Amino acid sequence: MKLGIIGLGRMGLAIAQRAVQGGHEVIGFDFSAQATETAQKSGVSIVTSMPEVAQKARIIWLMVPAGDTVDEVIEQILPNLQTGDIVIDGGNSKFTDSIRRYHVLGNENVHFLDCGTSGGLRGRDVGFSLMIGGDESAYTNLIPLFTAIAAPQGFCHVGPAGSGHYVKMVHNGIEYGLMQAYAEGFHLIKDGSFQEHNLDLAKISNVWMHGSVIRSFLLELAHEIFVADQELTDVSGKVDESGMGKWTVEDAEQLKIPLSVIQKSLDIRAQSQKTGGNYATKIVALLRKSFGGHSIHKATK
Amino acid sequence: MKLGIIGLGRMGLAIAQRAVQGGHEVIGFDFSAQATETAQKSGVSIVTSMPEVAQKARIIWLMVPAGDTVDEVIEQILPNLQTGDIVIDGGNSKFTDSIRRYHVLGNENVHFLDCGTSGGLRGRDVGFSLMIGGDESAYTNLIPLFTAIAAPQGFCHVGPAGSGHYVKMVHNGIEYGLMQAYAEGFHLIKDGSFQEHNLDLAKISNVWMHGSVIRSFLLELAHEIFVADQELTDVSGKVDESGMGKWTVEDAEQLKIPLSVIQKSLDIRAQSQKTGGNYATKIVALLRKSFGGHSIHKATK
Repeated sequence: MKLGIIGLGRMGLAIAQRAVQGGHEVIGFDFSAQATETAQKSGVSIVTSMPEVAQKARIIWLMVPAGDTVDEVIEQILPNLQTGDIVIDGGNSKFTDSIRRYHVLGNENVHFLDCGTSGGLRGRDVGFSLMIGGDESAYTNLIPLFTAIAAPQGFCHVGPAGSGHYVKMVHNGIEYGLMQAYAEGFHLIKDGSFQEHNLDLAKISNVWMHGSVIRSFLLELAHEIFVADQELTDVSGKVDESGMGKWTVEDAEQLKIPLSVIQKSLDIRAQSQKTGGNYATKIVALLRKSFGGHSIHKATK
Repeated sequence: MKLGIIGLGRMGLAIAQRAVQGGHEVIGFDFSAQATETAQKSGVSIVTSMPEVAQKARIIWLMVPAGDTVDEVIEQILPNLQTGDIVIDGGNSKFTDSIRRYHVLGNENVHFLDCGTSGGLRGRDVGFSLMIGGDESAYTNLIPLFTAIAAPQGFCHVGPAGSGHYVKMVHNGIEYGLMQAYAEGFHLIKDGSFQEHNLDLAKISNVWMHGSVIRSFLLELAHEIFVADQELTDVSGKVDESGMGKWTVEDAEQLKIPLSVIQKSLDIRAQSQKTGGNYATKIVALLRKSFGGHSIHKATK
């Protein structure tokens, strides 16, 4: 298949690389010369404008920041889109925006798939987990492409337009809660009743990775963090958030579904911006960096 | 090695079976005829009293309910213990009790190891995750035994007496938070903005298992639950708790370490006993059943 990708940042590049490795032809565009150069080395044919992507490819994957940028990109490519084209938004867009875009493009007889993409930077190697919403016929046509990009069994058609990004939004809400739970536990082991014995968090996280009920991918990332450093004195406890946690909580509030733990995890991040956080939020910040490449704040003292 | 096991319930039996499969000689005792019969079929030599275990084995593993029972068992075997014997408490004892028992037995020149045992019922097949506190020399002597019982890389000496059970306590606190986070997320997918579309939780959890940032053992158990049933109408949302979550929160409170998410998860369980809980707590109850064989309440209507 021939795939056009707009946005060759960390995640867009990984998607492009997996598509190329899967034997697909990939053309790509990004404003950054560095991004296009890296992509070119991976076998992506670079074009010099967004309309050109839409001239040359009938399947177009958007991997750009959520929000207005997605609408701007769609506006740029729309004149060159043809009946039956498929546009996939692989970013973290709000599901209500995705439903709107589905209809806007549908009016032009263009399919729009909203694709929640999880796996972070490690996804390039093991494959991504893709939650896809929109027309099932468009989804079915792209199965060879999803197979290349996803981990084995790592993609599915979730439901109608918007449901892919909705499920990804909830995924991220869960992620907030999981990270905070691990982080609080490690904080207690570090500063709790055995503080003076300096229990080894690298050793403990390693044992938990092997056979315990709480073994997980995030625990493996925590283990890597502790192997490198357990004091975390250079890291600020301020944790940023990219919106999806907040949307999750807002949706739940509107529908009166209690999300106590996810809500709490979100509150703690907001709090950390004011107070500077603590050992637990340092771990959360480092986990975000590990899986997503999100930047961390440096400790001020 | 020759190992005596007192307590051949679900977990004790699994420990015994793995020790036998690892080539160790195991003698065992339990009050339940059914338990001893099952153990015997697995190659365990059954003896008819606790003192007899201590007569015949120099390494004794206790797998009995936490609390007074552990002290009663120790009292029963103490007259037959010899200098250099090793008693291991593999249950979920409070770490302060384990420190006390370490000294009581130490006065008799008997080693006491507190061994946090995670992995639940599936541990029998994949091996357990063992967090061990106490004298390092006693630990070192038992490495062949731990190798048989644990998953590969699934055991370590955590620190001094009590630290094994302390780390297991925190592990269970984390477990509370993780389960609640997943459960809240699935609740939102079920009853949230896409409620009318009946999104398939079995399909979604399966995709998350493959390549997503939130992949984990608990997620795999959730997937199994949803494959069987997604309505959960027969299950009550009342979730029990076995003490360790409470101890985790108490220890943190005493030391002023914030455990917001873990605390919240504990509160939700207490609340569920009064209100009957909701879809999320039903999932938590079923997860506890899946990994630990803990009983669930039936829905009353």
